Amino acid sequence: MKAIVKVTLRKGVLDPQGKAIEQALHHLGFNGAENVRQGKFIEMTVPDGTGQDKIAEMCRQLLANPVTEDFEIELVA
Amino acid sequence: MKAIVKVTLRKGVLDPQGKAIEQALHHLGFNGAENVRQGKFIEMTVPDGTGQDKIAEMCRQLLANPVTEDFEIELVA
Repeated sequence: MKAIVKVTLRKGVLDPQGKAIEQALHHLGFNGAENVRQGKFIEMTVPDGTGQDKIAEMCRQLLANPVTEDFEIELVA
Repeated sequence: MKAIVKVTLRKGVLDPQGKAIEQALHHLGFNGAENVRQGKFIEMTVPDGTGQDKIAEMCRQLLANPVTEDFEIELVA
């Protein structure tokens, strides 16, 4: 089965990369784009029956920074 | 409305960051994790009624590298 982890900066944490993208979009003429935030996601194959808790443990130990980032887990059969 | 763009490396393009994550997971004891791939996503607020084609244009011009990356667009009202 497949696990998809979405890691986002917490609300309130400054996102300089998102800001840079926003400004670049404005320069290209896409003036409507606002509140741009960038995050990352990680896809992986895990053994069938792997629980959400196991993936959450991966996030806490490696994939996300618990101080500044939130994560969401999606398991796809 | 909100636009979410998911940018992934094309299949066949080497993903060194994904490989690094995979090895780190194995070292932490998560031996079941395989085929780890990392991508990024960009969330933004766009004016109501913005079409998929406009966002695709942003991807082609700025958000994704057309040589090595694919993108997916999701519009949320």
